[in-house]
Amino acid sequence: MYHHIKKLMYTVRVGTPDPVYGKMLLEQFGGQNGELAAAMQYTVQGINTTNPSIKDLLMDIGTEELSHLEVVGTLAMMHLKPMKGGSRAAAEADPLLAITGGGGVNLVDSAGSAWTANYLKVTGEPDIDLRNNIAAEARAKVTYDRLMRLTDDQGTIDALQFLMTREITHMRAFMQGLESLGKAPLDVGFYAPTPGLVDQFFNDSTGEGEDGAKDETTRAPWIKGFEIVDNPGFNPEKMKLDEVAGSAKQDISTSSRKHIEPVEHAAE
Amino acid sequence: MYHHIKKLMYTVRVGTPDPVYGKMLLEQFGGQNGELAAAMQYTVQGINTTNPSIKDLLMDIGTEELSHLEVVGTLAMMHLKPMKGGSRAAAEADPLLAITGGGGVNLVDSAGSAWTANYLKVTGEPDIDLRNNIAAEARAKVTYDRLMRLTDDQGTIDALQFLMTREITHMRAFMQGLESLGKAPLDVGFYAPTPGLVDQFFNDSTGEGEDGAKDETTRAPWIKGFEIVDNPGFNPEKMKLDEVAGSAKQDISTSSRKHIEPVEHAAE
Amino acid sequence: MYHHIKKLMYTVRVGTPDPVYGKMLLEQFGGQNGELAAAMQYTVQGINTTNPSIKDLLMDIGTEELSHLEVVGTLAMMHLKPMKGGSRAAAEADPLLAITGGGGVNLVDSAGSAWTANYLKVTGEPDIDLRNNIAAEARAKVTYDRLMRLTDDQGTIDALQFLMTREITHMRAFMQGLESLGKAPLDVGFYAPTPGLVDQFFNDSTGEGEDGAKDETTRAPWIKGFEIVDNPGFNPEKMKLDEVAGSAKQDISTSSRKHIEPVEHAAE
Amino acid sequence: MYHHIKKLMYTVRVGTPDPVYGKMLLEQFGGQNGELAAAMQYTVQGINTTNPSIKDLLMDIGTEELSHLEVVGTLAMMHLKPMKGGSRAAAEADPLLAITGGGGVNLVDSAGSAWTANYLKVTGEPDIDLRNNIAAEARAKVTYDRLMRLTDDQGTIDALQFLMTREITHMRAFMQGLESLGKAPLDVGFYAPTPGLVDQFFNDSTGEGEDGAKDETTRAPWIKGFEIVDNPGFNPEKMKLDEVAGSAKQDISTSSRKHIEPVEHAAE
Amino acid sequence: MYHHIKKLMYTVRVGTPDPVYGKMLLEQFGGQNGELAAAMQYTVQGINTTNPSIKDLLMDIGTEELSHLEVVGTLAMMHLKPMKGGSRAAAEADPLLAITGGGGVNLVDSAGSAWTANYLKVTGEPDIDLRNNIAAEARAKVTYDRLMRLTDDQGTIDALQFLMTREITHMRAFMQGLESLGKAPLDVGFYAPTPGLVDQFFNDSTGEGEDGAKDETTRAPWIKGFEIVDNPGFNPEKMKLDEVAGSAKQDISTSSRKHIEPVEHAAE
Amino acid sequence: MYHHIKKLMYTVRVGTPDPVYGKMLLEQFGGQNGELAAAMQYTVQGINTTNPSIKDLLMDIGTEELSHLEVVGTLAMMHLKPMKGGSRAAAEADPLLAITGGGGVNLVDSAGSAWTANYLKVTGEPDIDLRNNIAAEARAKVTYDRLMRLTDDQGTIDALQFLMTREITHMRAFMQGLESLGKAPLDVGFYAPTPGLVDQFFNDSTGEGEDGAKDETTRAPWIKGFEIVDNPGFNPEKMKLDEVAGSAKQDISTSSRKHIEPVEHAAE
Repeated sequence: MYHHIKKLMYTVRVGTPDPVYGKMLLEQFGGQNGELAAAMQYTVQGINTTNPSIKDLLMDIGTEELSHLEVVGTLAMMHLKPMKGGSRAAAEADPLLAITGGGGVNLVDSAGSAWTANYLKVTGEPDIDLRNNIAAEARAKVTYDRLMRLTDDQGTIDALQFLMTREITHMRAFMQGLESLGKAPLDVGFYAPTPGLVDQFFNDSTGEGEDGAKDETTRAPWIKGFEIVDNPGFNPEKMKLDEVAGSAKQDISTSSRKHIEPVEHAAE
Repeated sequence: MYHHIKKLMYTVRVGTPDPVYGKMLLEQFGGQNGELAAAMQYTVQGINTTNPSIKDLLMDIGTEELSHLEVVGTLAMMHLKPMKGGSRAAAEADPLLAITGGGGVNLVDSAGSAWTANYLKVTGEPDIDLRNNIAAEARAKVTYDRLMRLTDDQGTIDALQFLMTREITHMRAFMQGLESLGKAPLDVGFYAPTPGLVDQFFNDSTGEGEDGAKDETTRAPWIKGFEIVDNPGFNPEKMKLDEVAGSAKQDISTSSRKHIEPVEHAAE
Repeated sequence: MYHHIKKLMYTVRVGTPDPVYGKMLLEQFGGQNGELAAAMQYTVQGINTTNPSIKDLLMDIGTEELSHLEVVGTLAMMHLKPMKGGSRAAAEADPLLAITGGGGVNLVDSAGSAWTANYLKVTGEPDIDLRNNIAAEARAKVTYDRLMRLTDDQGTIDALQFLMTREITHMRAFMQGLESLGKAPLDVGFYAPTPGLVDQFFNDSTGEGEDGAKDETTRAPWIKGFEIVDNPGFNPEKMKLDEVAGSAKQDISTSSRKHIEPVEHAAE
Repeated sequence: MYHHIKKLMYTVRVGTPDPVYGKMLLEQFGGQNGELAAAMQYTVQGINTTNPSIKDLLMDIGTEELSHLEVVGTLAMMHLKPMKGGSRAAAEADPLLAITGGGGVNLVDSAGSAWTANYLKVTGEPDIDLRNNIAAEARAKVTYDRLMRLTDDQGTIDALQFLMTREITHMRAFMQGLESLGKAPLDVGFYAPTPGLVDQFFNDSTGEGEDGAKDETTRAPWIKGFEIVDNPGFNPEKMKLDEVAGSAKQDISTSSRKHIEPVEHAAE
Repeated sequence: MYHHIKKLMYTVRVGTPDPVYGKMLLEQFGGQNGELAAAMQYTVQGINTTNPSIKDLLMDIGTEELSHLEVVGTLAMMHLKPMKGGSRAAAEADPLLAITGGGGVNLVDSAGSAWTANYLKVTGEPDIDLRNNIAAEARAKVTYDRLMRLTDDQGTIDALQFLMTREITHMRAFMQGLESLGKAPLDVGFYAPTPGLVDQFFNDSTGEGEDGAKDETTRAPWIKGFEIVDNPGFNPEKMKLDEVAGSAKQDISTSSRKHIEPVEHAAE
Repeated sequence: MYHHIKKLMYTVRVGTPDPVYGKMLLEQFGGQNGELAAAMQYTVQGINTTNPSIKDLLMDIGTEELSHLEVVGTLAMMHLKPMKGGSRAAAEADPLLAITGGGGVNLVDSAGSAWTANYLKVTGEPDIDLRNNIAAEARAKVTYDRLMRLTDDQGTIDALQFLMTREITHMRAFMQGLESLGKAPLDVGFYAPTPGLVDQFFNDSTGEGEDGAKDETTRAPWIKGFEIVDNPGFNPEKMKLDEVAGSAKQDISTSSRKHIEPVEHAAE
């Protein structure tokens, strides 16, 4: 059950309303990395999971994001206010909001695209959901940073600083939640990859670009521990494909397959 | 520039075509976690970034995902084949594909929703993009696992085992790419969070549920190092909000703000 | 600010899980007339309005709908449970949920289309928003009725009976809210329609259909008080168009236009 | 069957074309409350209903909205005309129309989002559909008002005054149609709500906001006749939930359920 | 202006209603190649064009497609009828229609995706629009063919035969319309391609596939008249790129650019 | 399999970055007629077809479009560069890209709408797909023309001239591919239209418009060979409907129906 308290989580003050900026703020209201996306992603994950500790984490933060949604919506509304009187100049800042909404906020992004659940990443695996959430918090954090540098209004900057700070809090909590599951970093899902092939890196982009771009694969720091297969399109025999056929057979096609449960259950 | 070699990256063999399963396979062709989503997310990130090492990583893997798109599309097409003759039973497996496409594949998911770029996470920050990609690979991996356990066709299982294995390869490469940037885990974006507030965890979901669900916050492993604020809606004074106002001011509202560059540039 | 209490607003009990029915229940979770649509429509309207009485009404009910979202999501999840083990039969009930979500709920409708804010009706005029909400509650009510007759599970019927009952409560409250604004039924927006023309009904659909359908206009109960214009396409001179030109001029093109405020302000 | 007469329902005259305003007018062409949405909502409802009187009402007005679609499309096209010559300034007013359509209209809104049938509300219940339509006409009416105050072009104002006037005509006709069904205002769908519970209002939003916002529930005019349950999240025992279980049983789970027909049939 | 005549353009008779088939028929009601898509594509093109002969062609056929929309909608509704009584079996044929619409039609496709104007191709160039329409009619024609072979109901087959026949009529009319513009087949838009380069075919897909697929470029009938560039990715010097730079300069960057009008104007 | 070569197919040079123009260029990156749409339409068609010659044609050109996607994405990114530093003026050119992407490109159009597979036309019939592709190339061609006249930057004009030229090359190749199938222009799908009816043109749009628009049907060049039915809504008996009933019966309802194969198979 939810309860609403009329006080905002952070009191919003706006000096001079700035309708163009109000439209920009909608990214965090109805945008792809905004507060509704965060609230819904965590809450839906929370409804689905059976791990009680992770469920509480998801519901705690999912609920806080609803409070943020209210803060950022109120902030945007205050910036959009000049649209209310029917001014043409203000309406040009965002015709969609001016004409369909009379200058109020709505669940659209800064380009007027309606919010969609296609933004959400919900997988039913606690470890993967937490990875989705860590990435989501990082995106939301930099979105606030970018909004902060586009205004000089101190009250607005303060409110965004509050919201941005909380994203780091959540990012840390999700990282600690992932850690608490005790899984190896590449232990994902419930079947094992094929040995040999999993350690080959396919160098599919080669040559030199006009701006000095080069093939970095052999010297890049991220290649350590991999065997490089150069131009696999032209050297298909170098890919260790032979071991794939049947490698999954004993796990999957036999009766044992029926008894393998998703990682979630094991983790709880 | 791209070049296409007619040989598939992994040769696909299907025993008995299974149109319902063919429709399920579309999740990895035109679905939210599928190969087009992966190919486009990495390739668009690759076009945007100016970090040459990360750009090469993104283009290598983005290109491989195009090869996977071709494999999984061919696999799905083979399972959908019975639709071609106009059989009513086969058409019921997926009326959309049968009627609009004559039984061929299209860029839709298993529920017939068209692929949309709203699935993508592209931020312009290499570290955040890599986090997006690690999460994306984990989602794709478990999607293959789930598809594997829904069929008994060995040729299909082999092809999916190949594709699943490569997701782990990519996940590792992206993790090593993130590591190579040398950033602290919570060093995201370009402004600092407000101290004190950032270390408070808001316990926004409390009480007991009927199924024995309890408030886990005080004893959860993910709470370590946080100060807990219980029921902040009813105890707003316990939130360290006072330090927010102006905490960002010197960074942002002064001339220094103009000179702060995104993290990306510093990292390169 | 929001707070979450772990207890569900209505305790959900399910006898035999029924995955196909679980998918049907998603209409009230992520569907066009579902609980998220209701919660977001009222909450966004509530953030926008400056009428304190209507704002409280909208936030009260918007918050209750979040509690309903949790109830119906939990109910659907319980019906979808057989998908979790990887059974092919259960997966066929809803491949999208089985494969992308491991059998959990997501913000999609029964056809797997992602929830979109295009479902919402938010206008910035309290009287129109209340009309939108009355219609929305009526739609949600009959959606629950239809779901109730598609199951025999008593626990499910009880939960839906609870949710359905509340829609009638909300519908009545919104009706009383509209009444409280004291506006005449056709007093909408802020400019007056052109007299004469506004009382003409254009009979644009005429003749007889094969199934005995006839032109009902002259004898229909809804025609009372209207002047009928038959076949205006072929009798354009019968439409009272002449009075339109300039009828709005004095209101709009003169300085008075600047001073006309939306009805909302007058009402508060 | 449809027939088209080349004469516009209202002759459109434009003084000085105004491309930015042309883009704004698209709200009533391809926007959420525009003429295509109205035409399709009523026409689809009309195809579905078996009530001959309501069907005629829906087809009459649905057809008139097609004529309006043509008027507003022509009006927008005339304002967009400067885009045709390839002027950069005009193209900046709406790059999407300029580049993809050479400056013609298309079924998008003022933010360039494509029209979607997600805007429509079609329920298969005549009384609910008429409520949807009353709300739709009110939205369209205020949309015209808002567009009227954003231009000084008299010919444009006249055309919009015509279109706006007709929305009031339609709103009245739909209201009279709803009245003609002879249903009590809260008689919706085909199952009865649970007595007692239906008369409780849950006060889910409480406390005080910074701007003097207060909990209005106890003194609001819309509360009359309700029993108030304060903070139900913390006082769940005050909700009359006990009467829900089984209250629908005799209606639904018994054989009588099979014989209950939707209200529509009774009404005809 | 539009007028509606109650008689259907083709009288629809259905023997045994078949809800699954009713859902399939929605492809031609609210689907990508369906009658609304055709009606709107031609009508919007018709509003935009200033060529009176082509405008009349577009409005004639656009209007006929509205009549077809009504026919196919009525046909689908008759097949969906068993959903009206609340039967679970019928509801499983299309839960979305059963639950949200009480078994009536709506503007969705056979997978329940809402109709979107993204299906439309409207360019503002009469010759290109006519090419779009020829392709659209061909798609609609084969869609009817595929639907015809999925039913044995003679009344349904007759209605579809009528609708299918008309698509061929329209396809021919659009072809004759294109011919009437008197343009060379490759005379598109208003700037000339670069000579030399335009006659090179880039052989970007090479090698052999497992199923005997070979590089057909050198012997394919469609290669006649082209110069082949093999593997341009690895032989970039063979592409005639040198003549591009500046080839458009005199046309575009000089004052003449301002005077070049779209082809449409010349053609009229 | 795909391989990526770091060199762009056409080297991009930009004089002065122009963020508003960069946003316009997105039409050819993530827009409805852009390079991703072309690449995916042809590639998906190529995966589906069993005609080896047409398959090679589709894969050759589908792959070239991927190279174009990279060129136009790089070009747009160079124009958007001023957004990277956080300038408010640059951010106003496209808030979506500035705030969510830090000024990089993404798969959206110039109005910020996400790319969707609803843009694609894939039918499973080689002749129809080729018609779709001819139309698609014509649309892409004029889109480049329109973009060319909106800039004065010579390097940009050169790159667009290259891309535009290639669309004409592809259009010709697809035309020659269609010709190579050896089908009569109106030989589409696999059932024959009803004689008599197919040669009637329904004159559904009549009368005179205010701007001198007249009914052109009787004298239009596109009417040749048709029998005109005037105002069929009011003269339904003139439509040759009688021959429809049963005209398809012998083909479809008898056993022969099972043996009719789509044209594709015959053509190969």
